[in-house]
Amino acid sequence: MKKDLISNQAQLDDSGKLIHLLGLENLPKSYLVDILDKADNLIDSKGNLKKSKALDDMSVANLFFEPSTRTRNTFEIAAMRSSANVINVDLANSALKKNEALMDTMHTLKAMQIDMFVIRHKQSGLPHHVAQHLEGVSILNAGDGINAHPTQALLDMLSIRQRKSNFEDLSVAIVGDITHSRVAHSDIQALKTLGTSDIRLIAPEGLQHDSSRCEAVRCFDNIDEGLKDCDVIIVLRLQKERMIEADIPNEQEYFDNYGLTPERLALAKKDCLVMHPGPINRGVEIDSAVADCPQSIVLQQVTNGIAVRMAVMQILAQNS
Amino acid sequence: MKKDLISNQAQLDDSGKLIHLLGLENLPKSYLVDILDKADNLIDSKGNLKKSKALDDMSVANLFFEPSTRTRNTFEIAAMRSSANVINVDLANSALKKNEALMDTMHTLKAMQIDMFVIRHKQSGLPHHVAQHLEGVSILNAGDGINAHPTQALLDMLSIRQRKSNFEDLSVAIVGDITHSRVAHSDIQALKTLGTSDIRLIAPEGLQHDSSRCEAVRCFDNIDEGLKDCDVIIVLRLQKERMIEADIPNEQEYFDNYGLTPERLALAKKDCLVMHPGPINRGVEIDSAVADCPQSIVLQQVTNGIAVRMAVMQILAQNS
Amino acid sequence: MKKDLISNQAQLDDSGKLIHLLGLENLPKSYLVDILDKADNLIDSKGNLKKSKALDDMSVANLFFEPSTRTRNTFEIAAMRSSANVINVDLANSALKKNEALMDTMHTLKAMQIDMFVIRHKQSGLPHHVAQHLEGVSILNAGDGINAHPTQALLDMLSIRQRKSNFEDLSVAIVGDITHSRVAHSDIQALKTLGTSDIRLIAPEGLQHDSSRCEAVRCFDNIDEGLKDCDVIIVLRLQKERMIEADIPNEQEYFDNYGLTPERLALAKKDCLVMHPGPINRGVEIDSAVADCPQSIVLQQVTNGIAVRMAVMQILAQNS
Repeated sequence: MKKDLISNQAQLDDSGKLIHLLGLENLPKSYLVDILDKADNLIDSKGNLKKSKALDDMSVANLFFEPSTRTRNTFEIAAMRSSANVINVDLANSALKKNEALMDTMHTLKAMQIDMFVIRHKQSGLPHHVAQHLEGVSILNAGDGINAHPTQALLDMLSIRQRKSNFEDLSVAIVGDITHSRVAHSDIQALKTLGTSDIRLIAPEGLQHDSSRCEAVRCFDNIDEGLKDCDVIIVLRLQKERMIEADIPNEQEYFDNYGLTPERLALAKKDCLVMHPGPINRGVEIDSAVADCPQSIVLQQVTNGIAVRMAVMQILAQNS
Repeated sequence: MKKDLISNQAQLDDSGKLIHLLGLENLPKSYLVDILDKADNLIDSKGNLKKSKALDDMSVANLFFEPSTRTRNTFEIAAMRSSANVINVDLANSALKKNEALMDTMHTLKAMQIDMFVIRHKQSGLPHHVAQHLEGVSILNAGDGINAHPTQALLDMLSIRQRKSNFEDLSVAIVGDITHSRVAHSDIQALKTLGTSDIRLIAPEGLQHDSSRCEAVRCFDNIDEGLKDCDVIIVLRLQKERMIEADIPNEQEYFDNYGLTPERLALAKKDCLVMHPGPINRGVEIDSAVADCPQSIVLQQVTNGIAVRMAVMQILAQNS
Repeated sequence: MKKDLISNQAQLDDSGKLIHLLGLENLPKSYLVDILDKADNLIDSKGNLKKSKALDDMSVANLFFEPSTRTRNTFEIAAMRSSANVINVDLANSALKKNEALMDTMHTLKAMQIDMFVIRHKQSGLPHHVAQHLEGVSILNAGDGINAHPTQALLDMLSIRQRKSNFEDLSVAIVGDITHSRVAHSDIQALKTLGTSDIRLIAPEGLQHDSSRCEAVRCFDNIDEGLKDCDVIIVLRLQKERMIEADIPNEQEYFDNYGLTPERLALAKKDCLVMHPGPINRGVEIDSAVADCPQSIVLQQVTNGIAVRMAVMQILAQNS
C-alpha cells in the first residue's frame, strides 16, 4: 500500500463526527484542539491524571501485531482509567497473514462485543482498511508502518502547548530518521495544522523527508544549522535495524553527527524544549545530560500520552 | 483415559443442582433449557449483550493447557461482563505433567480464593478429574481432548433456537472430522437431549462416528446425500494435524470432497442455517461465498458464545 | 552488590511511616504486628478473604524480571481484591541490562501514573536501588536475588501466629538450602524480631547459614537432630539449579538425607506445624504423606499470602 494512497476519510462520519482516529492528515484544527482540551481537563492541578467513568460500559481490545510493551501499556492504562474492560489479544503466534483472515478475526472480536480496537501493525494503512470494512466499532491507530502515529503526535502537541503560548511563532526541529518515522510524519502534520510557521527536519542523507512533500518544511543535514534558535527539539529514537540502510556504521558515529549534546542544545533558544517519544537510547540519539536537563519534558510526554489516549477514547465513545 | 469411562456425574450435587459444567451427556433437558433461557435474557432487543453484576464478588481463573487465544478471550470477556475478577494463569512453561502436580496447582489456586476454573486440556476427562478432587469451586470444561466442549454445543443450540421453532422436526447435518471433534460430540449430545429426530454425520471414511455409538444418528460419507433437505449445517473446522491420519492428501482435495460450496448448500432446505465454531478456513472446509451468505450465522454464534458462557458462570455461581 | 551492603533504610520515611516494603531487617516489631493484624482482619470467620476498596484509585504494576507465575498471581489477586488497577509489564524480552535503562523504565511507568511497583529481580538489592531513586511511588520487594522475600516471611509468621499462642517459646526449624534462600533469610529475620528463642537451620554442608551471621540461631547438618521437639518446620523448596553447587548428586539422595518424612516429622512435637513456600516437590524435599497430613498448613499459607499482600499494599497506599 503506497503511503500516498492512504486516506483518513473513514475517520469522520457523514455529519463530521470523529468516529475513528486513523491519522492527522486532513483533520481540521478544531478536532485537534478538542482532543487537546479534553486531555488537559483530565489532568488535575497537581499534574496527576483523573479517573473517569466515561467508558464504563465499553470493552477495548489491544491488537498489537508489532511488539511494543510500552505503547500497549499506555493504551491499556488509558482504557482502565476510563473504566473500560480491556482485553489484550495475543497475536504473537497469529497466522493472520492475509487481510481476509485478519478481517474475520476483527468481525469475530466485534461479535464478542468489543467496542473499540487499538491497532498497531507494520503495514501502513492497515487500520484504515479495517475502519473501512468494519462498521459499528471505533478504530484507534497506534502506529501503522511508516505512515502515522496520531496519538504520539497529539501528546507531543499537548506537551508543547502546556509550555508555549502559541504554535504560530514556534521553530520546531525534528531530528533523526525522518523517512521511516511515523512519529515524524504525524508530528509534521499536527504542527502544520496548528499553524507552526517554521518546521525543520534534520536527518542524515537518505533518511530525509521526501522532497516532493517538502512544502512548508525546511530540511537540514547539518544538525548545528538546523537547531539554531529553535524553540522545540523533537529527537527521534534511532531504530537500530535502519542503521545499515542509512549508511550509519555505528552508534558512536550517529551520536557524533546527530546526537543531541549540551553543546548543540546551546545553539537553540534558552528555553528550548527537549522531547523524545521514548524509550531513549542514552548516548546514541541523546546525551544523558540532555535527557535529564530541566528543558527535557520526556516524562511529561509520557503522562500526557495517557491523557491524550483517554481523551481520544472518550471522544470516540461519545460519537459512536 | 477412555472416553467411555468419563462420567459427568460430579457436575450435579446431591440435590441435583448444577455445580460444574463438564459435559452434556446425562444432563437432563431442563438444565439445557435453563442455560439457554438465561443466555437469551442476557441479550438485549438490539442483539447486544448486557453487563451484569452477578459475579461481582468472584474470581475466575482461565487455565488453558492447550493454546487457544480465541476461546480464552470469550471466557475472559464473559467473566468480565459478569463483573468477576479474571486471572489468566500462564501455563506455557508449566511442567504440570503429572496429575499430582496439577492438583497441587489447583488446590493452590483455590487457596488464592479463585472460585471458578475454566479449563482446557488435551487430556479427555481432565476437568472431570479436577471436579471430583477439588471441593468448593466450580469447574467449567472449555474443551477436553476429543471428549467434550459443552459451551460450544450450548451456543450452537442457542443459535439454532433463535431461528427455528423447535428441535424435534429439524434435520441437522454435522460435516467434518467427527471422530476427533469434541464439538461434534457435544453437539450430538445436545441435539439428542433437545429431541432432534434427524441427526446426520458427514465425514470421510476413518473420521466417522464410532459405529457402536451410532444409535439415533445417520452416517454419510457422501456430503451431497447427507445435506439433502436439511435445516441446519454445522461445518467443523479442519484440524490440519489430522490430515495425514485421515488420508487427506491436501486441503484442495478436502474442499473438493467435503467443502461446503453454494452448490452443496443448495441441496439443503432454502432457509437452512450455516454454522461453524470458528475460526473458519475459507476455501478449505467452507467456501467464502457460503461463509458470508445470509444463511450463515457464524458471527451470531460468537455473540451467543459470550451469552452462554455468562449464563453458565452465573448459574454455577448461584449454585455454589 | 554484597548482601551486607543492602540497606532497608529507604522503607521508612522521616516520620517513621512504612512507604516501601524492602526487607524485614531493622524493621521494628510493631510494624510486623501491624501488618499481621491488618491481614488477619482481611480474613472472615469462614477463612475467606474479604474484598476491599482501599486501592480503588490506584494502579499497581507487576515487574517480574525473574519468571514466577505463582507469586505474580498472588500479587495480582491481592491488588485486584483491593480494587486497584493492575498491569503486568511484560519483561520477557526486555533488554534492561543496565540499571540506567531500568530506571528510565521505572520513571516512565511512574509517569504513566503507576502508584505501586511489585518487583522481583535476580539482583539482590535491586528494589532498594529503585526505592532510593524513584520518589513518590511505593516499592514492594517480591524477592530480590538471595537477599529477601519479605511478604513470604510475613505470611509464614501469620500462619504460625494463627495456631501458636506466642513466638517466644517456639522452636522453629528451617530445612534446606539456607545459603541461597531469600525465604530463609527473611524468615530468620522475622522470627528474631518477633522474639523466637530457638531458631534452627538444617542444611547440607556448603548450604548452611553464613557462620559470621549465626548469632541467635543454631545450625545443624543432621536433620534428625535438628527436628527434635520443634514446634514448626519450614521446608524450603529444592532449587534444582543449585544441586551441583551443593554437591547433591540427585534428588533421591537429597530426599534420603533431608526430605521431610513421617518418621522425621515424628521427632518433632506432636502438634508441630509443617510449612512450605510452594510449589512443593513431592518426594524431593517433602514426602507426599507429610505434605497432605493434618499438621501441614501449606494451603493456609497460600491464602495468608493474599491477605498479607493486601495488608501491605493497603498500608503503603495509606502512607503514600
